[in-house]
Amino acid sequence: MELSIATYIEQHKQQFLDELFDYLRIPSISSEAAHRPDMMRCAEWLREALRRAGATRAEVFGTDGNPIVYGERIVSAEAPTVLVYGHYDVMPVDPIDEWTTEPFEPVIRDGRIRGRGADDDKGQGFMHVKAFEALVATGTLRCNVKFMFEGEEEIGSGALTTWCGEHKEMLAADVILVSDTSLLGWETPSITCGLRGLAFVEIEATGPNRDLHSGLYGGAVVNPVNALCKLIGSLTDEATGRITIPGFYDGVREFNTAERAAINAAPFDEGAFAAAIGLDGLHGGEKGYTAMERKGIRPTLDVCGIWGGYTGEGAKTIIPASAHAKVSMRLVAGQDFERITELFVEHVERLAPQYGIRVRCQALHGGYPYMAPTESAAYQAAAQAMEETFGRRPVPFYSGGSIPIISTFERVLGIKSILMGFGLDTDAIHSPNENFPLANFYRGIETLPRFYEYFAAATTAAAGRE
Amino acid sequence: MELSIATYIEQHKQQFLDELFDYLRIPSISSEAAHRPDMMRCAEWLREALRRAGATRAEVFGTDGNPIVYGERIVSAEAPTVLVYGHYDVMPVDPIDEWTTEPFEPVIRDGRIRGRGADDDKGQGFMHVKAFEALVATGTLRCNVKFMFEGEEEIGSGALTTWCGEHKEMLAADVILVSDTSLLGWETPSITCGLRGLAFVEIEATGPNRDLHSGLYGGAVVNPVNALCKLIGSLTDEATGRITIPGFYDGVREFNTAERAAINAAPFDEGAFAAAIGLDGLHGGEKGYTAMERKGIRPTLDVCGIWGGYTGEGAKTIIPASAHAKVSMRLVAGQDFERITELFVEHVERLAPQYGIRVRCQALHGGYPYMAPTESAAYQAAAQAMEETFGRRPVPFYSGGSIPIISTFERVLGIKSILMGFGLDTDAIHSPNENFPLANFYRGIETLPRFYEYFAAATTAAAGRE
Repeated sequence: MELSIATYIEQHKQQFLDELFDYLRIPSISSEAAHRPDMMRCAEWLREALRRAGATRAEVFGTDGNPIVYGERIVSAEAPTVLVYGHYDVMPVDPIDEWTTEPFEPVIRDGRIRGRGADDDKGQGFMHVKAFEALVATGTLRCNVKFMFEGEEEIGSGALTTWCGEHKEMLAADVILVSDTSLLGWETPSITCGLRGLAFVEIEATGPNRDLHSGLYGGAVVNPVNALCKLIGSLTDEATGRITIPGFYDGVREFNTAERAAINAAPFDEGAFAAAIGLDGLHGGEKGYTAMERKGIRPTLDVCGIWGGYTGEGAKTIIPASAHAKVSMRLVAGQDFERITELFVEHVERLAPQYGIRVRCQALHGGYPYMAPTESAAYQAAAQAMEETFGRRPVPFYSGGSIPIISTFERVLGIKSILMGFGLDTDAIHSPNENFPLANFYRGIETLPRFYEYFAAATTAAAGRE
Repeated sequence: MELSIATYIEQHKQQFLDELFDYLRIPSISSEAAHRPDMMRCAEWLREALRRAGATRAEVFGTDGNPIVYGERIVSAEAPTVLVYGHYDVMPVDPIDEWTTEPFEPVIRDGRIRGRGADDDKGQGFMHVKAFEALVATGTLRCNVKFMFEGEEEIGSGALTTWCGEHKEMLAADVILVSDTSLLGWETPSITCGLRGLAFVEIEATGPNRDLHSGLYGGAVVNPVNALCKLIGSLTDEATGRITIPGFYDGVREFNTAERAAINAAPFDEGAFAAAIGLDGLHGGEKGYTAMERKGIRPTLDVCGIWGGYTGEGAKTIIPASAHAKVSMRLVAGQDFERITELFVEHVERLAPQYGIRVRCQALHGGYPYMAPTESAAYQAAAQAMEETFGRRPVPFYSGGSIPIISTFERVLGIKSILMGFGLDTDAIHSPNENFPLANFYRGIETLPRFYEYFAAATTAAAGRE
């Protein structure tokens, strides 16, 4: 009789940790050119780790940027295929003085793995390798598994996007499984079902051809700052908090009562959330939605920066020649960032003459939103797996942030992702003293095999019914 | 028979110019400490010039700042008294490379006196000394004349304000006569009848206690930049262009049809004015008033500077912790800058919670508006004098700018000023290559004696009627 998965994990805990420490010791900082050799070293280490874990194929693919590690184990042509995504690159360590341990000399302290990449995403990515190893070693793997680990997630995933387009067949899968997000809390397991997209546009509003004396000209001449304020003010409706750009909400996915109830089932202390950022309450955004919904499943329009005229000390009485604003719109399922950018620019250009200014808009950045339907087999398998290890059903979490590569996978490979992260908000990713609780690391390795089990069962059952 | 004034002037033209050149050669830059000795030298030179011209008393008064030159000639206890104001300090000369002649080596070129102070205000002030000399020399002075020349006009007139308060009796007069402004044009003689006041306030709008991720928080949290834009936008009414601060227009002097006709009688080419500043038209300000009126007799609210959040290159997706704006309000007759500042701050503080932000306002600067009624004897005398030399009636001009000392005279000494300037907009005051047309210099010396004549006649006639 073969070992149970639980027993295998229990017997190999120290080995898993030792291996992770080896992985963490490689300073694979993708944004620093000096670490270029470390990227290759890290990719090769990971290829070997995949081989040892049971991959029948494991390769390092060169790219224009950092290499991509690919591995697979095909159990059957009929079995469902899971494509695991992770990244082996990490963020820089500055400000180095604020670290209490060495970033690339991992240690356990206070029950936490400490070091750069402990969570993001070496720790979380390596859970998948070890869960896979446990499945293989115990003869219980009933899915085909493919791995792709990139080395450029922290710098925009440039090489991966191209590479995916070139390897669609090799990457064919039923679902992409990713652990690069956080739980709402240890007591509140969650699965990230949504990521917002982004349209980022800079507006330049111009009036007179130079700064004018506010006395000699004031009253006779439109002031571009006053005008831009009016224009920006008009982009959101004061009574409803809704964005007034025509067509902005076209196609926005509306959540039904049950879905909204599930989102709001997450314990969320508005008062504490507000207090932590120095506010006495959460008053922004669209009326008719909870704060949790407003920052997850509703689009926004925020000015990220504004400037114009004299900004030094004291008084300088001018009518500025121009004013500028950087505007970020977070987008949700059903919104196309290119279309929204277009609508924004058209609307602003249409309004400008009414406010007496000329405008020039520049699209600076954009990304698609992402959404994983909670009724999918993959989501249900993930939820069931987590419920079993955490003792409670995970809540669907709609993150207001963006992970551009996830929507890219959907667009390039046509595959949905399940964001089954085991981090915590206290893990200080991207900051000094990054860490990952040991308990989360092992809980992840314990939970992931269950996902494969339930996903295989669900897809086989579905196939049987056909 | 004594000489006529015209003949006296004709015979002394070269001498007047030589003396002015001596005056211009003294580099009396008030804002540069290195020129402190030049200030005293210049004041003493001017005292001697007053003596030579016919002053029976001429003194240099020490102050905490630069000295003040006082002179007088009292012809009779019954005669009206004219107090002449001017300043002997000049602006710095930077950027020195842009001068085509030496700033403190005056020359005549293309019919213009060239050098720092040629117009502002040595050239214009010295016309008064020479006109006075002509009156004395020809035995035609029928007014008492007092002179005060300060050395701090370009740096805020600090010493003069205090000094006036301490010498009210000595300075007692029926009118203050000032040449420190411009004509609308050689073909459009004008008298400046109004100066706008100023209330300048900085607003700090704060939201969260730090910049937030616009994805993770966007929608749940009020954005201080969006909110400040809405708040500023609400301060002017879009349909009427009027300022919405309650009480803002209380007491504003409304001009009657005849007065408005006189203001608009000045040839003013809106198209050319707009084109010169790169605009296709003048669309700002309050509806129902011409551009000439909007920049002269109506109050304004202009943002002189705004800033908040990320203003560097590219995209940074944050909700800024704060936003700032500097707001200048130009005020007109009937408005008290302290009251307006108070109304502004109260209004902004009242609005802030509605927009979900906290605000802190700081009054940075303020000054009273000034207005000389066109029906006064002094205005009429000035208008008659100019009509005679220019061959056409001067138009009353309401300047949108501020000359704070003029309203200070009214408040401290209780005396109205007549702003009878002979400069042109092309004189490049405060800029490199300051100049003053020779014709204007002589035209001023020719016009001013007529003012004394008509003013004496009018006040004597009025006294006779009593």
